[in-house]
Amino acid sequence: MVVTKKIGLRTMGECDLIDITPQVRKEVSSSGINSGTVTLFLAGSTAGISTIEFESGLLSDFQSMWERTVPRSIPYEHDRRWGDGNGYSHVRASLLGASLVVPFTDKTLALGTWQQIVLVDFDNRPRSREVVLQIMGE
Amino acid sequence: MVVTKKIGLRTMGECDLIDITPQVRKEVSSSGINSGTVTLFLAGSTAGISTIEFESGLLSDFQSMWERTVPRSIPYEHDRRWGDGNGYSHVRASLLGASLVVPFTDKTLALGTWQQIVLVDFDNRPRSREVVLQIMGE
Amino acid sequence: MVVTKKIGLRTMGECDLIDITPQVRKEVSSSGINSGTVTLFLAGSTAGISTIEFESGLLSDFQSMWERTVPRSIPYEHDRRWGDGNGYSHVRASLLGASLVVPFTDKTLALGTWQQIVLVDFDNRPRSREVVLQIMGE
Repeated sequence: MVVTKKIGLRTMGECDLIDITPQVRKEVSSSGINSGTVTLFLAGSTAGISTIEFESGLLSDFQSMWERTVPRSIPYEHDRRWGDGNGYSHVRASLLGASLVVPFTDKTLALGTWQQIVLVDFDNRPRSREVVLQIMGE
Repeated sequence: MVVTKKIGLRTMGECDLIDITPQVRKEVSSSGINSGTVTLFLAGSTAGISTIEFESGLLSDFQSMWERTVPRSIPYEHDRRWGDGNGYSHVRASLLGASLVVPFTDKTLALGTWQQIVLVDFDNRPRSREVVLQIMGE
Repeated sequence: MVVTKKIGLRTMGECDLIDITPQVRKEVSSSGINSGTVTLFLAGSTAGISTIEFESGLLSDFQSMWERTVPRSIPYEHDRRWGDGNGYSHVRASLLGASLVVPFTDKTLALGTWQQIVLVDFDNRPRSREVVLQIMGE
């Protein structure tokens, strides 16, 4: 059995992290599927999906890591050719990854107590985003 | 068809890598499912799942990469607010990712010869961990 | 329903990126499955799978990020013990990840307009690679 859902979001960009756990939980619980997996996929090349303990200290630490590893302030070939100014956003998204798969049993996600599912938007401006949820199982 | 299994482990923390390939192989082979995918998911926000050629040189190289990219010795907001001292563990886990999906056919995992599935525990102390295996297919 | 396909490729190594979107699209479209997920898995420990906007500026930016984060020019224990000279390739592959899961509906992949699926080969020499596609759904 396969059920497809979409979560629409407005993001602020610049490593904006949005906790989508409540929406994922709700869609899985109302899908009619008892056990299986929910595949979360971000359509787009400047954002990704991961999990984190969603507290403001860690959000800041996560953002600092990206600034060290894929800095905004160095030159990017993408920007030189296209003038988008978001070369760093693309590189960050490719490293983080566009998909996450979370198992569930008895309609309950296999998340840890302090583990939330997040959309991470690396783009350099506010965006409308859509996360696809493919819920599969029996 | 969906079969849920769990692998329980004791880890040492500080980028402890544990080869869980034998357990995954055993659970897939005894699941009654011939072809499909096994989704591995780590419930928790200071550890993750990946693959690596499991030899001691590379385990050390992998740990050195984490120490360069997300060092223990710099200040973290998470630690300042909560005093946990494991801010770096959280950031590393969010970058590595909590899920891995491995296809199998005729009960055989699609792994390379020198490719093992590993739990990576980034926490700053020994932990009890549980990896969820969602085995799906026909 | 489960359909297994394989994409065979010749790569050049040294962070060679190959756009495999057309092949994935074709296999999903001819699989007989309407809605579900395609799991892409790279068998091997020196390459991985991700998504990127496939234009030459970003390919270069992505390669520069790897050279900063996991440089070729520093010593690796793997190379000291085995003389392979590709310690950096292994570490990069473990960080990027071996699997990607893409949902599809009405035989259409949930990709963004500027988002392509890529095999990333980090090895230090040309290789023959095989990407496994596990297509599941109904």
